[in-house]
Amino acid sequence: MYFYKEDLINIIVPDKPDPAAAKVLQEALGGRFGEMRTMMQFFFQSSNFRGNAKPFRDLIRGIFLEEISHVELVQTTINQLLNGSGEEAVGAGGSTGAPLEDAVKEHANPHHYIMGAQSSLPVDAGGNPWNGNYVYNHGNLVADLLDNVVLESTGVLQKTRIYEMSSNKTFRETLAFLIVRDNAHQNAFAKALETLGVNWGKIFPVPNYDINKYPECRKYVEMGFHNAQFNFRLDETLMGQIFQGESPSRDDGNLEVVPPPTGYPVPILPEMPNEHSPGLHDLNS
Amino acid sequence: MYFYKEDLINIIVPDKPDPAAAKVLQEALGGRFGEMRTMMQFFFQSSNFRGNAKPFRDLIRGIFLEEISHVELVQTTINQLLNGSGEEAVGAGGSTGAPLEDAVKEHANPHHYIMGAQSSLPVDAGGNPWNGNYVYNHGNLVADLLDNVVLESTGVLQKTRIYEMSSNKTFRETLAFLIVRDNAHQNAFAKALETLGVNWGKIFPVPNYDINKYPECRKYVEMGFHNAQFNFRLDETLMGQIFQGESPSRDDGNLEVVPPPTGYPVPILPEMPNEHSPGLHDLNS
Amino acid sequence: MYFYKEDLINIIVPDKPDPAAAKVLQEALGGRFGEMRTMMQFFFQSSNFRGNAKPFRDLIRGIFLEEISHVELVQTTINQLLNGSGEEAVGAGGSTGAPLEDAVKEHANPHHYIMGAQSSLPVDAGGNPWNGNYVYNHGNLVADLLDNVVLESTGVLQKTRIYEMSSNKTFRETLAFLIVRDNAHQNAFAKALETLGVNWGKIFPVPNYDINKYPECRKYVEMGFHNAQFNFRLDETLMGQIFQGESPSRDDGNLEVVPPPTGYPVPILPEMPNEHSPGLHDLNS
Amino acid sequence: MYFYKEDLINIIVPDKPDPAAAKVLQEALGGRFGEMRTMMQFFFQSSNFRGNAKPFRDLIRGIFLEEISHVELVQTTINQLLNGSGEEAVGAGGSTGAPLEDAVKEHANPHHYIMGAQSSLPVDAGGNPWNGNYVYNHGNLVADLLDNVVLESTGVLQKTRIYEMSSNKTFRETLAFLIVRDNAHQNAFAKALETLGVNWGKIFPVPNYDINKYPECRKYVEMGFHNAQFNFRLDETLMGQIFQGESPSRDDGNLEVVPPPTGYPVPILPEMPNEHSPGLHDLNS
Amino acid sequence: MYFYKEDLINIIVPDKPDPAAAKVLQEALGGRFGEMRTMMQFFFQSSNFRGNAKPFRDLIRGIFLEEISHVELVQTTINQLLNGSGEEAVGAGGSTGAPLEDAVKEHANPHHYIMGAQSSLPVDAGGNPWNGNYVYNHGNLVADLLDNVVLESTGVLQKTRIYEMSSNKTFRETLAFLIVRDNAHQNAFAKALETLGVNWGKIFPVPNYDINKYPECRKYVEMGFHNAQFNFRLDETLMGQIFQGESPSRDDGNLEVVPPPTGYPVPILPEMPNEHSPGLHDLNS
Amino acid sequence: MYFYKEDLINIIVPDKPDPAAAKVLQEALGGRFGEMRTMMQFFFQSSNFRGNAKPFRDLIRGIFLEEISHVELVQTTINQLLNGSGEEAVGAGGSTGAPLEDAVKEHANPHHYIMGAQSSLPVDAGGNPWNGNYVYNHGNLVADLLDNVVLESTGVLQKTRIYEMSSNKTFRETLAFLIVRDNAHQNAFAKALETLGVNWGKIFPVPNYDINKYPECRKYVEMGFHNAQFNFRLDETLMGQIFQGESPSRDDGNLEVVPPPTGYPVPILPEMPNEHSPGLHDLNS
Repeated sequence: MYFYKEDLINIIVPDKPDPAAAKVLQEALGGRFGEMRTMMQFFFQSSNFRGNAKPFRDLIRGIFLEEISHVELVQTTINQLLNGSGEEAVGAGGSTGAPLEDAVKEHANPHHYIMGAQSSLPVDAGGNPWNGNYVYNHGNLVADLLDNVVLESTGVLQKTRIYEMSSNKTFRETLAFLIVRDNAHQNAFAKALETLGVNWGKIFPVPNYDINKYPECRKYVEMGFHNAQFNFRLDETLMGQIFQGESPSRDDGNLEVVPPPTGYPVPILPEMPNEHSPGLHDLNS
Repeated sequence: MYFYKEDLINIIVPDKPDPAAAKVLQEALGGRFGEMRTMMQFFFQSSNFRGNAKPFRDLIRGIFLEEISHVELVQTTINQLLNGSGEEAVGAGGSTGAPLEDAVKEHANPHHYIMGAQSSLPVDAGGNPWNGNYVYNHGNLVADLLDNVVLESTGVLQKTRIYEMSSNKTFRETLAFLIVRDNAHQNAFAKALETLGVNWGKIFPVPNYDINKYPECRKYVEMGFHNAQFNFRLDETLMGQIFQGESPSRDDGNLEVVPPPTGYPVPILPEMPNEHSPGLHDLNS
Repeated sequence: MYFYKEDLINIIVPDKPDPAAAKVLQEALGGRFGEMRTMMQFFFQSSNFRGNAKPFRDLIRGIFLEEISHVELVQTTINQLLNGSGEEAVGAGGSTGAPLEDAVKEHANPHHYIMGAQSSLPVDAGGNPWNGNYVYNHGNLVADLLDNVVLESTGVLQKTRIYEMSSNKTFRETLAFLIVRDNAHQNAFAKALETLGVNWGKIFPVPNYDINKYPECRKYVEMGFHNAQFNFRLDETLMGQIFQGESPSRDDGNLEVVPPPTGYPVPILPEMPNEHSPGLHDLNS
Repeated sequence: MYFYKEDLINIIVPDKPDPAAAKVLQEALGGRFGEMRTMMQFFFQSSNFRGNAKPFRDLIRGIFLEEISHVELVQTTINQLLNGSGEEAVGAGGSTGAPLEDAVKEHANPHHYIMGAQSSLPVDAGGNPWNGNYVYNHGNLVADLLDNVVLESTGVLQKTRIYEMSSNKTFRETLAFLIVRDNAHQNAFAKALETLGVNWGKIFPVPNYDINKYPECRKYVEMGFHNAQFNFRLDETLMGQIFQGESPSRDDGNLEVVPPPTGYPVPILPEMPNEHSPGLHDLNS
Repeated sequence: MYFYKEDLINIIVPDKPDPAAAKVLQEALGGRFGEMRTMMQFFFQSSNFRGNAKPFRDLIRGIFLEEISHVELVQTTINQLLNGSGEEAVGAGGSTGAPLEDAVKEHANPHHYIMGAQSSLPVDAGGNPWNGNYVYNHGNLVADLLDNVVLESTGVLQKTRIYEMSSNKTFRETLAFLIVRDNAHQNAFAKALETLGVNWGKIFPVPNYDINKYPECRKYVEMGFHNAQFNFRLDETLMGQIFQGESPSRDDGNLEVVPPPTGYPVPILPEMPNEHSPGLHDLNS
Repeated sequence: MYFYKEDLINIIVPDKPDPAAAKVLQEALGGRFGEMRTMMQFFFQSSNFRGNAKPFRDLIRGIFLEEISHVELVQTTINQLLNGSGEEAVGAGGSTGAPLEDAVKEHANPHHYIMGAQSSLPVDAGGNPWNGNYVYNHGNLVADLLDNVVLESTGVLQKTRIYEMSSNKTFRETLAFLIVRDNAHQNAFAKALETLGVNWGKIFPVPNYDINKYPECRKYVEMGFHNAQFNFRLDETLMGQIFQGESPSRDDGNLEVVPPPTGYPVPILPEMPNEHSPGLHDLNS
């Protein structure tokens, strides 16, 4: 069973609305290699796990638990990027009386305004809805772990590319946190295969990035977040039997299971009477 | 942030393998009105919530938390229905040397054997993968609540129909538990609209079912599960401001927020060397 | 604007329930070359028509109008094939107490029982939902007409194959009527291209079928339905400027615009209390 | 059977071409809550109706009939918005010799130019093709009516948001007409549930809008179009047994079945030789 | 079995990067009427061919072989249009430090930057992934050939429209070559039907275009590419029994099977360290 | 450019028709890990390759070339399994006069009879059409190679499971050949990563299979097909710089580039007049 404490796993840094950034960040939420995919893939792999190699099952489930928080973090970041984007446009569009005209013409995903009340959607950067065929779970542990390595590696790779698409601080802070965490998860699955006999040489991390390119990442690396796995279990977990010892990546350091990070408050999104959201006024009067 | 204790939300009752039952039960997992839909819909609605009507947000999030456990319960039930279905077939198929021939001809979903190692998939009863376009989240609270009522009502309706498709005990016990819980959630969203002024008359529950038709349901009704909402929050929740007082349905009773149910152990699925699952043998020797 | 008189365009011949036949007949409703496709393709082509060649536009629209009735006819036929299929199973399944078990194991589409209350769905024989990308409408009249010829020809071809999948009379009567009508529509679009200079030689009809293979077809041929186009316009139409003269097919005869056929009563589907359909009982008591 | 008179259900007000407006208006045609959905959903519900509660069936079918005209109205509006959008670009693009370059860069849907000859498509604002899984038809009348209320409410909600995306008069007039008509249909299904015992309080209409925000709507409200249901039956209908008496919404007034509105002429789209549409020239010479 | 020589079937003419052109050119690669469709459709038709009418099978297979090279040509053209588009943006975007910001805002497909390393994707101009339901192969030779005529005609029609979307030389040269080659394939399938008795009159080519509108086409027409079919067989082919004699189109000339064209070198795409592509550096050091 | 010699890459062993086997074998053709996926993935990776590490590009392209023949082999095997399956049913179904009734009830994919004339389709074992989103090509060589390892490993894993679904000889011979060839390709991509520094220990091959379970595989292993890569280039290839030396798998042996295998004749599928395939008769008389 699953429990919750209303805390975000990382901070939402304030900056201006940016609907074009919100559109491309959807890839990290609902894309083929986004957080909905990692969440659901590890969920199915841990529920369908065969055999009694419990440390592996606990590792996969442990990362699944964190991915739920990642989904929430990206949803909230997209909301922050969209929030006020219609109002800002009101100014520019005031002459025509079409407040959303500019937002839509600023490379926005129109569904952010038509379906969502300027909020996140289960779709990718191109607007394609998330699809169950993304999930890889064949029950063969080696194959599943290899695919998990590909998934986490591609997650980082995509995020380093998305990072170049806007200098918005809200956008980049969340991406930086996720780049470092995906790196930790890449390490986790690579390490699991290392326990089965693989020596990865110098191929990790994928991509072969220079931390200095992503200044927002540095503090998370200094906090050791690339080598840590948060433990969200209320009972015992054996994932520490795998997630320990030297990192399988060039970045060195020792892997360690740690308590969850400090939580951050979930922002309250203001009402949008123009968008009939939440639309409750006067119903009870 | 999300926490976990390795307990199933309900019991898995043992019975024989039944791949045809596993195939149709997928609707309750990955169908347009299945548990993945309820889980993701309420996740998006609670993350994207606008305004400060916190009791509504807490209600939606509270039900979301339970739905994660429902997904796990249906996954585990499908696994139990598939487990051994290939071996059983070995006997019948032994003459041809094709152990899965019978399983596939018994109206199975072939992907249960090709993709999964006889385990659950993110698809519906027809094999269509889960799709992000199922999620309804328009940010207008009245519209969102109305759609949630439709979603939970349709969930029960479908499950009463799926129930007629097999007399397998594993299958029916899980369906019975979910019928009663969906009923509670139908009550929750109906009640939320009641607080906004609606009087539902006698239209709920949908469908208009006689509990005696579903003997497995009776004990859950006697335990009051149709009028209870489990609380999986580790911090405070205001959902009890809505989920209280008289039930909006003909079934009467008083709504009440209660602690989570007793958990049940997660079964360990045996290894399947024939299916190369988990496939670890001798790798470390 | 569109008007309606509650009459089916052809008779529903009674026979036993046959869920396997209902499943494959879905191709003629929601398949890539089914009646929903023809209806929507000709709808878009007539609404988006460019230029003032009104006889062509009237021809396309005239056939669109008939296709709405075809959709209704196939929906009703599928309903007739499914109606009672669960009850029949009750007998066989009585021992297990799972009335739908047999129906589902008789090669049924499980969604006919889970989603529909034993009624038609907007999907094909494989259960894939109808898709907007089926519609061809490029605005180039020659290309649009050629695609319409392919569409109608493939419609007949598929129906002659589906015809071989069951000897059920309800099933075959509807297929036979539609084979002859699709033939008329094949003639219509072939003739339209003939007016633009094409001489088709002997290639039509596709497929090259012997009417004696489909005894149910004969009466419709004798009534001239393969060379007639019904006129559902309440105002003037110019389609007769094209749909006239010698048939472009080997089957000879003269094309003629005629009044709508005699209508047949729409059957009333009985209530299914087990399936909570319609589910109204006692609500008003 | 279905009959037709070549009249649009509302006027097309002239204004400048606006491909970005055409792109977002596609949501009202081929989106999950657009007119193709309402048309097909009510078509399936009326064909698959179980039981002899004819006034409900007649109500659903009656609204289905109007939705066919709505599809035609939105198709025609999109065509009007696209018409000339390439030519306008010719001027700007003349220097590069790429007449469509500007149109495509003006946030257009490229398929409006590649597939359609600057005309409507069966897709949504994001370019996703219409999908059969949108249709809700479970045969349980309460569930079907509740979903219809959600569908019509969401239709209005989305249209009030789309309205803010352009001040183009062609675009806004059609949206205004549809907002008022969707409101009438919301009332129709809400009223049908009222006859089954529900008292809606003040929750309708969704969204909770101020008519003064949509000046184009006012005349339709003054004509009583929010409380009227047009009757497109050539035979008797019982829908007036439901659609009568006090409106279930805050907007008050009495519901009434009325004759169809005055029709408006269908515009003739000019030929586009550059786009090879219709492409007939010289074929007969 | 299939053999390869590293040569492109046509030249890649250099010009500036143009991500908007790359986006729309995807239609010619992964669209419903693009080169992936023609390649796979003719592949299935030739593998599944029934009967011993070998000249028809050889014709379909012969065109399939060329289509593989067309896919490669469009992939390479898109790569050329994207190559450097991020770097160019660096200049403009230098102030914000977001090198891809401009590229994305220039109407690019964001997946060209997130998934591909600025390279081609199996999607259409709207970003929809290629879908197997595009393939038409019903085994009836007349129907298959008619659909092939529609497919090739629509291919040319779409390309003449895409051509108007950019004056980029890389873009237009590839389109011009393909327009002429699709014309030859339109002739091939039209001729095949001519051998079965059809006289096409003057309806081909579709669209009815004036070669002077597409100056890049002229040299290919002068080389006779509209009436030639390249022979990529290493063994004997009988396609020349069909592809011979007078062209079925207004453009006249005689059809002739000819050896493959001169090949052109495949460009080497430079590394993109910023995009971690190929990402090999220092791994072996 | 691509050349062809009409030879199958392996033999088609005769056996009885088996539509249920044909249905599940579709996974190996049009499934997420089938031959269409490998063919298209390696095609895009080789066309979009960045940098001058030509041996890697040649390796990917070399395997792509073989995959085209694999697609053809699986298409032809499915055709062989379907061929005569309708006729066989004629006997059984003769009493009802519905020749395809039995075929459809024998767990067939109905589209094999409705769309194809008893021939292969671009779909998977569940009937889902092939989808462009299966293709992985991110341009980062390490990530692309890792995904290729997962793809080939999963290909073998799935085929060992499909193998258990029928003892039909036509079916098993093709699967056995492909299991061994996928194994060679798994070795190829694993070796490519080995050249970048990875030591795989004992994890390959995936799955960890015993060759004695698949007697049909043995001869291919004895011929060294698990360690060979066929060379289909007509010009020079550098793939031998990677595909050489000791195998990265437990199965040992030395990798070697070899000439293409002996080809096998492509079977001629007989005409099916009942299915109007090819449907040419009397057109020319």
